[in-house]
Amino acid sequence: MKNENLYNYILGIADNSLILGQRLGELTGHGPSLETDIACTNMSLDLFGQVRSYYQYAAKLKGGDATEDTIAFLRKERDYVNVLLVEQPDRDFAYTMARQFLFDVYHLLFLQELQKSHDITLTAIAKKSIKEVSYHQRFSTDWIKRLGDGTTVSHDKMQEAIDSLWTYTDELFHQTAADKAMVAEGIGVDVTALKVKYYSLVSAVLEEATLKIPESKWFQKGGKKGIHTEHFGYILSNMQYMQLAYPNMEW
Amino acid sequence: MKNENLYNYILGIADNSLILGQRLGELTGHGPSLETDIACTNMSLDLFGQVRSYYQYAAKLKGGDATEDTIAFLRKERDYVNVLLVEQPDRDFAYTMARQFLFDVYHLLFLQELQKSHDITLTAIAKKSIKEVSYHQRFSTDWIKRLGDGTTVSHDKMQEAIDSLWTYTDELFHQTAADKAMVAEGIGVDVTALKVKYYSLVSAVLEEATLKIPESKWFQKGGKKGIHTEHFGYILSNMQYMQLAYPNMEW
Repeated sequence: MKNENLYNYILGIADNSLILGQRLGELTGHGPSLETDIACTNMSLDLFGQVRSYYQYAAKLKGGDATEDTIAFLRKERDYVNVLLVEQPDRDFAYTMARQFLFDVYHLLFLQELQKSHDITLTAIAKKSIKEVSYHQRFSTDWIKRLGDGTTVSHDKMQEAIDSLWTYTDELFHQTAADKAMVAEGIGVDVTALKVKYYSLVSAVLEEATLKIPESKWFQKGGKKGIHTEHFGYILSNMQYMQLAYPNMEW
Repeated sequence: MKNENLYNYILGIADNSLILGQRLGELTGHGPSLETDIACTNMSLDLFGQVRSYYQYAAKLKGGDATEDTIAFLRKERDYVNVLLVEQPDRDFAYTMARQFLFDVYHLLFLQELQKSHDITLTAIAKKSIKEVSYHQRFSTDWIKRLGDGTTVSHDKMQEAIDSLWTYTDELFHQTAADKAMVAEGIGVDVTALKVKYYSLVSAVLEEATLKIPESKWFQKGGKKGIHTEHFGYILSNMQYMQLAYPNMEW
């Protein structure tokens, strides 16, 4: 494929949003209150909207029979390159918000840089997405503070969620081969350059939320290379079921 | 299809064991002790073994490209005719054992009658299965007694499980069109005739286990007509994933 690096680069962005959107969508009807339930579902829809733009672009690059749907639904597990963070399950609401927050801070920093890409399709998607993701970040940040600086129970649950998910944060800043190639062409974002700012922003929020910043220096990785956690197969089996059982289905 | 009633009749037997086997298989590695973990997995394998015999027979009747695998894995939700009882989820070990017990008592009574069928393939499968299912019933009956007549906590959990699953027991004795046709030919078992004995056997065990016999007279139904509970789609998406993602796969 011509533009294979660009194609892989786009998947590297979009798969994060696809899988996080899928996780949030699983919660529809299960939120702790009507307002948060709708908020999570809306964030899921925002992410799916962004994903469609990315995959439509990827499908154009790939050519042949590729469509946004075949890319979203018909790849095998090893071909999804989302970070491990976004595939982690919804153990409780603190966990869901911690996952969202740890991704949102990264996502917003990332899109701010992607706006400057030399690829005009990517800058257009970034500009459109950034409004939505700013809202996501405000929403999840609010909940980190409310739960962290809330009751003893909510504080402990949020601390546990942050501690448990912390190990997946470092992978956000790992460069893939496609990343490096796209950075060299002025198209991609150098994620390594976002790391310091990310941890500083995250730490400030955790402190305000009276939460401890985890000290662990050991981090999980693999998602960007298609090596996923045990949860991923279940996500795919649910997410792909309709397309696999009813090939080429449309609403 | 010639023999369509017989084909549907076989699915009516085998789908119960397939879905219960799938549920038990999900627990592999999650049992409360090594012994029970292995026991549940073994019961799952027993059931899958029986299922293979039934589906091989069904595939022969259906002809064409049908195999035990296409029948097991490639039907749509509405084409599975298992009772709702067996698709209920594993909320806890009491729940798993209650589901098993409420099915095993029926299953054993059913196979004892199926041994007398005029269809020699079905009598052969029944004779082979009956040894395994006798063990299943002893195992689950034991646990009903141990947990029911155990601690306050185990008693309450088992009572809750029995109360909750009771509503799915009546469907075991509903006759489908295929049932009626096969009973008329001396091939099928008249399940309506098993009902009194079933509730009497179940009640005796519950009493010995110091558990109350639920009084509810309102029962769920639908599975035998392909109308399933909300849990069923998730079972199928997990169970069918490999065959759908990798068509015609073999080990």
